[in-house]
This record gives sequence, C-alpha cells and structure tokens, in this order.
Amino acid sequence: MSSIIGNNIRLSVFGESHSDAIGCVIDGLPAGTRLDFEKIEKEMGRRAPGKDRTSTPRKEDDIPRIISGVLNGTTTGAPLAVIIENNNTKSGDYANIMKVPRPSHSDYPAYVKFGGNNDVRGGGHFSARLTAPIVFAGAVAKQILGEKGIFVGAHIKKIGSVCDEQFDFNNISSELLSSLTSKSFSVIDESTEAKMREEIEKYRLEGNSVGGEIECAVIGIPVGVGGNIFDTVEGRISSFVFGVPAVKGIQFGLGFDFASQNGKAVNDEYEIKDKKVCLVSNNNGGVLGGMTNGAPIVFSVAMKPTPSIALPQRSVNLETMENEELVIKGRHDPCVAVRAVSVIEAAAALAILDLIS
Amino acid sequence: MSSIIGNNIRLSVFGESHSDAIGCVIDGLPAGTRLDFEKIEKEMGRRAPGKDRTSTPRKEDDIPRIISGVLNGTTTGAPLAVIIENNNTKSGDYANIMKVPRPSHSDYPAYVKFGGNNDVRGGGHFSARLTAPIVFAGAVAKQILGEKGIFVGAHIKKIGSVCDEQFDFNNISSELLSSLTSKSFSVIDESTEAKMREEIEKYRLEGNSVGGEIECAVIGIPVGVGGNIFDTVEGRISSFVFGVPAVKGIQFGLGFDFASQNGKAVNDEYEIKDKKVCLVSNNNGGVLGGMTNGAPIVFSVAMKPTPSIALPQRSVNLETMENEELVIKGRHDPCVAVRAVSVIEAAAALAILDLIS
Amino acid sequence: MSSIIGNNIRLSVFGESHSDAIGCVIDGLPAGTRLDFEKIEKEMGRRAPGKDRTSTPRKEDDIPRIISGVLNGTTTGAPLAVIIENNNTKSGDYANIMKVPRPSHSDYPAYVKFGGNNDVRGGGHFSARLTAPIVFAGAVAKQILGEKGIFVGAHIKKIGSVCDEQFDFNNISSELLSSLTSKSFSVIDESTEAKMREEIEKYRLEGNSVGGEIECAVIGIPVGVGGNIFDTVEGRISSFVFGVPAVKGIQFGLGFDFASQNGKAVNDEYEIKDKKVCLVSNNNGGVLGGMTNGAPIVFSVAMKPTPSIALPQRSVNLETMENEELVIKGRHDPCVAVRAVSVIEAAAALAILDLIS
Amino acid sequence: MSSIIGNNIRLSVFGESHSDAIGCVIDGLPAGTRLDFEKIEKEMGRRAPGKDRTSTPRKEDDIPRIISGVLNGTTTGAPLAVIIENNNTKSGDYANIMKVPRPSHSDYPAYVKFGGNNDVRGGGHFSARLTAPIVFAGAVAKQILGEKGIFVGAHIKKIGSVCDEQFDFNNISSELLSSLTSKSFSVIDESTEAKMREEIEKYRLEGNSVGGEIECAVIGIPVGVGGNIFDTVEGRISSFVFGVPAVKGIQFGLGFDFASQNGKAVNDEYEIKDKKVCLVSNNNGGVLGGMTNGAPIVFSVAMKPTPSIALPQRSVNLETMENEELVIKGRHDPCVAVRAVSVIEAAAALAILDLIS
Repeated sequence: MSSIIGNNIRLSVFGESHSDAIGCVIDGLPAGTRLDFEKIEKEMGRRAPGKDRTSTPRKEDDIPRIISGVLNGTTTGAPLAVIIENNNTKSGDYANIMKVPRPSHSDYPAYVKFGGNNDVRGGGHFSARLTAPIVFAGAVAKQILGEKGIFVGAHIKKIGSVCDEQFDFNNISSELLSSLTSKSFSVIDESTEAKMREEIEKYRLEGNSVGGEIECAVIGIPVGVGGNIFDTVEGRISSFVFGVPAVKGIQFGLGFDFASQNGKAVNDEYEIKDKKVCLVSNNNGGVLGGMTNGAPIVFSVAMKPTPSIALPQRSVNLETMENEELVIKGRHDPCVAVRAVSVIEAAAALAILDLIS
Repeated sequence: MSSIIGNNIRLSVFGESHSDAIGCVIDGLPAGTRLDFEKIEKEMGRRAPGKDRTSTPRKEDDIPRIISGVLNGTTTGAPLAVIIENNNTKSGDYANIMKVPRPSHSDYPAYVKFGGNNDVRGGGHFSARLTAPIVFAGAVAKQILGEKGIFVGAHIKKIGSVCDEQFDFNNISSELLSSLTSKSFSVIDESTEAKMREEIEKYRLEGNSVGGEIECAVIGIPVGVGGNIFDTVEGRISSFVFGVPAVKGIQFGLGFDFASQNGKAVNDEYEIKDKKVCLVSNNNGGVLGGMTNGAPIVFSVAMKPTPSIALPQRSVNLETMENEELVIKGRHDPCVAVRAVSVIEAAAALAILDLIS
Repeated sequence: MSSIIGNNIRLSVFGESHSDAIGCVIDGLPAGTRLDFEKIEKEMGRRAPGKDRTSTPRKEDDIPRIISGVLNGTTTGAPLAVIIENNNTKSGDYANIMKVPRPSHSDYPAYVKFGGNNDVRGGGHFSARLTAPIVFAGAVAKQILGEKGIFVGAHIKKIGSVCDEQFDFNNISSELLSSLTSKSFSVIDESTEAKMREEIEKYRLEGNSVGGEIECAVIGIPVGVGGNIFDTVEGRISSFVFGVPAVKGIQFGLGFDFASQNGKAVNDEYEIKDKKVCLVSNNNGGVLGGMTNGAPIVFSVAMKPTPSIALPQRSVNLETMENEELVIKGRHDPCVAVRAVSVIEAAAALAILDLIS
Repeated sequence: MSSIIGNNIRLSVFGESHSDAIGCVIDGLPAGTRLDFEKIEKEMGRRAPGKDRTSTPRKEDDIPRIISGVLNGTTTGAPLAVIIENNNTKSGDYANIMKVPRPSHSDYPAYVKFGGNNDVRGGGHFSARLTAPIVFAGAVAKQILGEKGIFVGAHIKKIGSVCDEQFDFNNISSELLSSLTSKSFSVIDESTEAKMREEIEKYRLEGNSVGGEIECAVIGIPVGVGGNIFDTVEGRISSFVFGVPAVKGIQFGLGFDFASQNGKAVNDEYEIKDKKVCLVSNNNGGVLGGMTNGAPIVFSVAMKPTPSIALPQRSVNLETMENEELVIKGRHDPCVAVRAVSVIEAAAALAILDLIS
C-alpha cells in the first residue's frame, strides 16, 4: 500500500483531491541540475484541466510551490519537495457518492480497504488530480534526461474509433517528440485533432465518455539498460504507468499483435550501418531480454473511458445494502486520454531516469 | 539489474542455461505450511521441455532439490532454497552465436551490458530455462493461496490464428481453474488443442515459430488488496510477468478494447445479491483504482514468437563489425506460449501472495 | 543517497535548514486512527529550540501544517504529508562557512558529494532542524503503538561526567515512560537535571560543547518481532537512529559491557511466572537472534558534542586550498543530547511500527 | 522477516545449521571481475571451525560450490549463487533443546515466531554457521573493492579483560590490514594472542564462555559516499553487522567515549597537506553527516559471550510450561569473537560495496 516508487530516484506522491494541497517528493536527484521552471509549468499546463470542452471545467492554477531541494534554480541534492494548493474544490458535489460507489471507480474497493475512513471527495487519493505532481516530477526528469540526449514524447494513438498516425518504430526524431510535447492536444497527424475532438464531443453531449490509447517513445537511451530477470525495462515502466488512473493495458513494440505473428516476419535482424550495430526493424519496441537494445523504446497504453459519466447508473448503498440508482454530479473529463498524454510521458521519463541513475 | 522481486515474499532467481544448476530462494514464507511436493513436481512437469513436438527436444529431469527451509515437508520460516541441476547441456551448439547475436534475443544488449563476460550459452541467465525455478516458487505460492481459498489458472487464449474460448470474466469457477492447471496443454475448449498443435507444427516444419496469448485468472481474492498509487495490482503483476521471456504486453479485463469503448457500455455497475455487493459485469478484470474489487482478476499477456528460428537471418559479427548471416542450431520451442502457461500462473500467484502477505 | 526509510511504513523527510519549509510524508499508515494533535505538538515542543540556555536561541514556532492524509482528525489511509515553515532563518550568519568547512560537520563531505551545489546555510539538508518532522512522524507512530499497548520513552543517561540513573532493564513501567515523555529535560532521577544543566552551562560559557548518551526503552512489544538474518530489531532501529545527527554509537542491553563478561554471568535465563515464560534478567535488551523476546527493548546511543562551537578552529578554504582559521557564528546548542531525547524516541517508535506493520 | 540485504548489491542468505546445505546468492555484481578462489577459500578458512580449542570441534570442509554467475573464473553479471554442503551434523545432540529454550539464544523468540515449525537443530537459520556464506560473499566483495583501492581489515580489540592495541584512527596502512586478514587469530600486537587464548581457555575449562570486541577499518574509500538522512554509512554498516550473531553494539570512531567529551577536544579539524584536504584527527571514524570524509572508516562491535555454555542453566519447558534445568550438549565456541573477525570484515565489505555500487 504505497504511493512511493523507484529504486534510485524515488518519487513519493501525496495529497487528496480535496485536501489542503497535493504534492510530491523526489528523492535521489543529482545535485547541480539547472531547472527550467517555465518549461516545467508548460508541461503542467498540458495536463491542467479547464482549458476546453475535452476536460473537466474544474479550474486549478496548479502553480507548484518548491519547498526544498532547489537553490537559485539549481538542484541541491536534497529531496526536491513541491506542493500544489487545492483551491477550487466543490466538496458538496460529492455528498451522494459517500455511500453509493461510482461504477468502475476506486470508491468501492477503497471503502472496504480503508473501512470508510478514506476521503471520498473527488476520489480522494485516487483522483486523477494526483497526476499533477507526477507531471511535475516527470518534467524534472525530462530535463535531466535531455542533458544526456534522451528524449520522451507521446501522442494520442486513438480515441474511440478515430486513430492518429503511429510512430515509425525504428525512426523517431527528437524534433517529432519535441513537437508532440509542445502541444496540448498531442497528435502526429494534425488533421486528426478535429476528428478526435468531434468524437469526444459526441460522447460528452450524451453524458457519456470514451476510451483511448496513448503511444509513447523514448529515444537516445544507451544499449543495455535494464534487466536481469525482474528488473526489465517493461516491468519498470509498467509499475509507473499503472499508477496513472484509467490505464488498463500496456504493450511494447508490436505488443498484442505479436500473438498472431511468426518469428521470421517479426524478428528484428541486425546490420552494420556507419560502423555501428543497427536494427533493421524495431518490432520489439527497443527492449530485448528486458534490456534496451538502442532502438527507440516504444510502448502504448490502453485507457478506459472516464468512469464518471452523467448518465444514471445502477449501484448500491453500502450502508443500507440496497440497490440504488446513481446520478453523478461534479465535473469530469469526457475522455481522460487527452490530458493523460503528459502523464504517460512523465511516467516513462521517471522510470527511465530511475533505471539509468 | 536484479533477479530479485517482491516486497513481503521475495523471490531470488539464479542460474544460467549452462551453469552447474539453476534455482531460487523464496524469502519470507510463513512457517508451518505443509507442502505437497508431488503437486509441485506436476506443475513443473507442465513447464518441462522435451515432452512433444511443441517444445524443444532438450530433456531435463527438473527434479528440484530442496536445500533448506523445509523440515518434514513443512516450511520452517527460513528462506526456502531449491536447486535444479543442469544435466543435459549441449554447449557446442552455441559456438557460432558467441559473437553473432540472435535477432530479437537478449544476446546483443547483454553483450554490451556485460562487456562480453556473460554466459551466452543457451541464453545464459536470460534463458527461458530460468522459468523452471519460477514455476517451482509459483507452485509453492499456489498452495499457500489455496489454503486461503484463492485459486489461479491460465490457458492459451490464442496461437497464431487459432483462438480458444475466453474466460467469462465475471463467472470463473475453481473447477475450471483446477482443470486448466492439471493439463499440459491448457485450453478451455478442448477441441482447440488439435488446431493449435497443427498451427505450431506448420511453423515448426518451416523452421519458423509463432506467437500467442495467454489468459490468466485469479479468484477468491478479498476486496481492497493493492493500491495506493504505485502499488497497483496491475503494476505488481506486470513486474513479475515481464520477467517471463517473450512477454511483450499485458492487459487487464477488456484492456486494449477499452480504447474504442464508451463509459456507459463498459462501466461495471453494482447490485446487491444474497445481501452482498456484487458486480454486474467485470470489464475491469477485477481491479479498480489499483485495488481488487472482489471480482476475478483477469489479465492476458502477449507472447512473441520464439526468436530462435532455424531459418537463416541477417545479423552482425560483434568482433569484426561486419554483416553475417546467422543460422541458429540448438534446440528450441516453435511456440513458447504452450509451456509458458504455468509460468504466467506462477508469476500471478507470486505477485498475489506478495500483495496479501 | 536517500531520505526515505522503512519497509511497511515509509517515512520520507524533506527540507533544508533555510529552505521555504521542511516536512515529511508518512506512507502506509493504517486508515482510521484518530490522532491527538495536541499531544503531537507537545512532543514537538520537547524538541523545539529556543526554550532555554541548553539550546540554540533560534526560535521556531514549529507548527505542523497537515497537507493531506487526515480528515476530521482521523487518518484516511492516504500518505500523511506535513510541512513546517522555516520562518526564523538568519542566512547571513553562514556566509563564512560557504567555503570553509566546519570541523566534524557534514560540510566537507557534502561539498564534495554535491559539487558545491548543496545548500550549506544552517547545514542544509543535514541540519538537526530536519529532526522536527521526524519527531512529528514519531509522535504519530507512538499514538498508533499506544493503541496496541506498546510504549516508548527515553532519558538522558549521561552528559559529560554527569550520569542519570539507568533503566532497570527487566522492569520498566508505562508510568515511568509516560513521565519521561512529558518532560522537556528527561531524566529518571530528577535531581540529575540541575547537575546536567550545570555541566552544559560550563561548556557553553567557554564557547564549547559537550557530548551525551541517551537511553531508550520500548515496552509491550510481542515476542518474535524482527529477524531473520538481516531484518534484526537491532539493525532496523540502528538504521533509523543513525539518521539522527550526532549519533555515533548504539548498543542493546549490556552492549559494550558484554565484551568483558562471561556467559554464566550474563545469560538471560527463563522461568515460569503466572503461567507465562519470563526472563530472569534482560541483559540482551529485549532482543535475541534479532527478534524481540518479550522483555523491554532497551538500547542506548552515544551523541557527540555539538560540532559547532564558538572557539576558533583550524580549517581550510576549499577554493584557495589554504589553511584558514574558522570562527563559527550563528546559534547552536551546547549539548544536542537534551533535545535529541524526543528524536531518539521517534526513531525507535518509527522502527518498531515499521517492524510490526 | 528477511535474509536479504542491500540496495545495489543484494545478498540473499539461506540454509539452516542441519539442512542439506547453506549458501547465498549475490545479485547485482558487476560482470567481468576475475575472482581468486584460493583467496576466497583462505578467507573462509579463517572463519571455519574445528581448528583449535578456541572454537567448536565440529569440523566442516566448507568448500563452496559455485552454482552460477561465474564462467572461467570471471563474474558473468548473473547472480552469483553458491552452496556449502552440511556434512558434519550431529542432530541427536539437540534433542533436549527442542522444547527447552537455551538462555540468550534465538530459541524462544523463534519458537513463538514460527509456531514451533522452525528447525531448531543447531540453531537452525539463526546458527552462526550461516556466517559461512556471508564470509564467502564478503571475500568476493573485498576483491572487487581491492581493485578500486579500498581495503578492509579487522582485529580482536578485546576478549574478556585482555586488550589488543587499537587502530591509530587517522593512519591505517593497507599493509596492516593485509597482515590482519591473513591471520586466523587477528591481533595487531602479536604478543596479545597468547594472553587472549589463555583467557578463552580459562572460561572453556569451566564450561563457560567469554565476550569480546572487534575493531574494523576500511581505507581508500572516496569522500562523499553515503547520506542523506537515512542512508548513512553508519546505518548501512549497522544493518549488515547486526546480522552477525552475538553482536550487541556498534560504535564509530570514539563512539561511546564521545559522551564524556567536549567539542574542542574531539572535533576533527582540517589542514592542507600535499595540496589536499586532510583531517588532523579522525575521532568520527571517517563518517560525518552519514557520509565518508576520506579518513579511514573505523568502527568497533561488541560481541556477547557465546550463549551456549556447558554449565547448567535455568530454563523452562515450553510444552509443560514448567521450570526445567537445562544442560546444553553439542559443540560450541567458548568465544565467538575469534572467528567473527572475518565475518565483521565481510559485513563491512558488503555494506561498502553496496554503498558505492
């Protein structure tokens, strides 16, 4: 039962949707890294809600307050602690979910686990709001990785029935990644954005929600990171990524498409190019035997539709133990995949930084 | 870089395909559990190679020798250590892969990572042979779970183009799981076996290999196990599962199918049945907010085709740095998914035991 | 390089002496524990500086602000985060130690470790001020332990040449411990206080400092906590205790006196009393084979004299690499042992809570 | 409840005094280190019993069998696993201690902890025999450290009333350490050996035992290793050292003598020598703020008298719950401090290797 992750760079995330504040501590950062706070706030802006109709109208300034670990803009080597105040909380909205768990949400298992003592307002500690400090930490991690020539970027691969172009696994430029990380609606083929927004709006209007898939890449990472058996790059990235609410699956390279493939067709052969060992293809998404092989790490994650929908749903009253129809009020994203792009990038950056530290 | 996993029950796996022996240490087991060694050896028999044409003809007796931690058939509370001798090693077969890495295998990243000092024979520490001690440990875990009414079972969901019936997510009986774990070729619909064998044989005859998907379920687990943010049931199972060679993806419940779904259609509503809180559906595969919700945990993993194929492949010589065609000799499974069923079960059982301990 | 500790209850401490604030996150606390904040602030008052001449005149209100993890006075099961603002910082005082390390202080190794990027003001992250959040966390731990009948208390065993009465190892009452934890100058024999204050004042007046020894006891802990080889009660308590600045040694029971003893004289024999297994003596300080044996855990720690003294000292300038006399300004305790009593209790409480959770 | 330790280099120790074998797994070792097995066996010979009257007459060949992780004498980067067979076990000797716990031994807490399922023969998993694999692992660690110019050595500082010369804290040569590690009875002043043997023999003849103190030094370690708050060099060494049976205290530098000292007298001032920062004294034993300061790490540990003595002792029968006199048969060391020297060195080497890896 932990909100701490990492072996070398350890991230401790705290807060609840309606507590005083949320925040995180990043322990083990190298001293002497100059941080670009403008860039960090831009990253946080990508995740922040309230910008348009794809997200919840709850507006938060999300200005991180650095508590310690930074002096004159440079890391000191002490744990970097940050808090983000919770200003715009409407606790009244959640009165009726206190005892009637929202379907597909953490409410019911949390109620049992914590004996009803957990803060249910806004999902409490399980709220997607807790991804704000993760994005902060990820932005710090990205800057440290960037100094080593390692870049991370992601895009919305799919929303409902609308698909973006995919990464060319074996040929991903830092320019492409940089362009993706500068967008608030990250897609490779910009013509996709309008179609995706339309798809989301369709579900929003009917009080419904829609799922999506996010594809993420890491380039510039050296060969041989990760492994042995239980320290696989895949396992470590997964541990971070499943900490992001609504993620229900992860696959590397061809992933589930491997199941219907044959070895001859999908094996990643080698060739010498410019006196270097190169891969002819990158179906394995940059990881072999749990270790990086020098090709881009490419993985995608499945995100379920936001469980909080406006339509009435069947639920139960945990006190009276009787069936009860539930109508969720409050403010919610019709599609979490849009804002989750920066969170998935953050999770990947943190996992990679932890692996190479 | 670690072959140890777990927080409360820690598993340390050691050995190389052609070292003296392989084995594991299970640290943290409760004292006083009576172990049924006949059952454990049966489990190991499901994984053991050399039984038929779906697997490598390398035969290993795979008789585990208990070094410590068991007295008169009962756990003592000291670490349970076991070794399995490596008898049937044909090291000569691997001479030509010393410097020419096999495509899609760990050879190249391992060569870089370990500076050429790793034991490449048979894949060394990255060999699928290392799953034998994992199955041993999993069999022990299953017995401890069984005493608590928790059961684990898996089946081959798919090989190439042939699919088995799927689990009915919200209705999985211990009888079904028990029947699956007693088979060496685990499928729900027994008529699938012949078709799958045919599919594998087709690829084997052409010196090729084929991928697959394995579906696994855990029933009887209490509500509220797992969580908070970074201790999700999904993340913990993933960490174990990606330690199994050839796994390239994992999804819970609907997994990647969530991406094209809407909330109304896939939310798992609640109802009272027999005065208990029940789920109307189980699209989330038994996990909400990273915690168990009382429904069966259901996940599936993608397995890539065995990378070692008999067909000639493009590779490079790491010493001369020139391109070199590679023809792999040695003995290999045309489809790893068959034998991996018991390994995935073991990984799930170990993850769950760790979570509830 | 970590400021996080614990396996089941994990404590992450952050902050620097002159950063915005200091604080901690306690991860893994059980939900539903009612916390008595008045009691917690009293504990913090025992550690807080500025009360009299035994401590530094720096005054801090040390009012903890709960960020999350508590709702209506009760733990929610989410990480409990707290910050304490740094109000009364006089950064100017430290100008001359930037490049001239204070003898016996962390300055020099920290300078090398962090390449000069660490915040040296007030000792930065290595300041004894960071024990404030440890005392907060320890006070929380004590309340949870108290509910289970486990009590912790410590006293100043020795300052310079003045000794307090020692614990009767095999007979320590909760009343005694409770009385010790309610004092700001904790001694068993109250007549010792005046003598100890005199000893400290003697050193203070000459611009010097003096060392001490603190003895701590834990009662009510069940038999069999701790172990096996590397999870010893002694090792776990030591890991926490050496996190307290100025601690240079720890011993359990007779400790170093064992070296000149014989087995017959010091073995702790057993006897049946009131139909229970009891120890005739408790020379082992409640721990055998790394496990608790039911007798009080008793340990003592050696604390060196405050390294910051007003007398001139030989040091070096790390920039010019020349010898330089150093005169330390700023405000410092002439004897850290007085205020450290509550910190040692906190460390013990946290270690024990972690072990039994 | 764990027999695994370490963050970067993880040591898993398994076995029981009378199980099939004992052994360990060292996980995370760098690949490519050439190991000198003759030297390793010499180290193990220093610990091995049966050489003379200072130790138990139980003779064990203690030949380590490498299971994996070494190829042609060089580490492969895979976990290094080793087992040592238990040949010379006389289980009959322990019949009467099954239900009558030996005073000051692990028997009673282990009985409660494991519900009577633990293997009590020879102390089971708590036997000092388990230090054999620790010495093996320590010998490997020493070789890796030696390649980096880091050397470890220890000596018997005291047995009963007989003291050896102490280390000159600020001036310890590799020659001295090398000479200590080549002795089976390690003392600095060789004239002490005869007196110590006499002291031990005196207690042996009366069926009694005697305690001791071991002093250990590590030289050549760079500045800035260890820290922050909870990753102190002192805490990490303590965690390993308290895993050695009979250790009851540890102190760094002046340790408990600090309590009666003043800052002016014991502060370690700096001076420039040969253009380098040097310490004028080393009263802190090479550690400041939890970090190394470049001076030798010096610590000493207190070892209690062997609890197993031949004299009759008061105990209880855990089945009948009545008092019962106990006479311990079997073979035991009259003073554990002699053989423990190599074990303390091993613990220090492993802790240091873990810290710098």
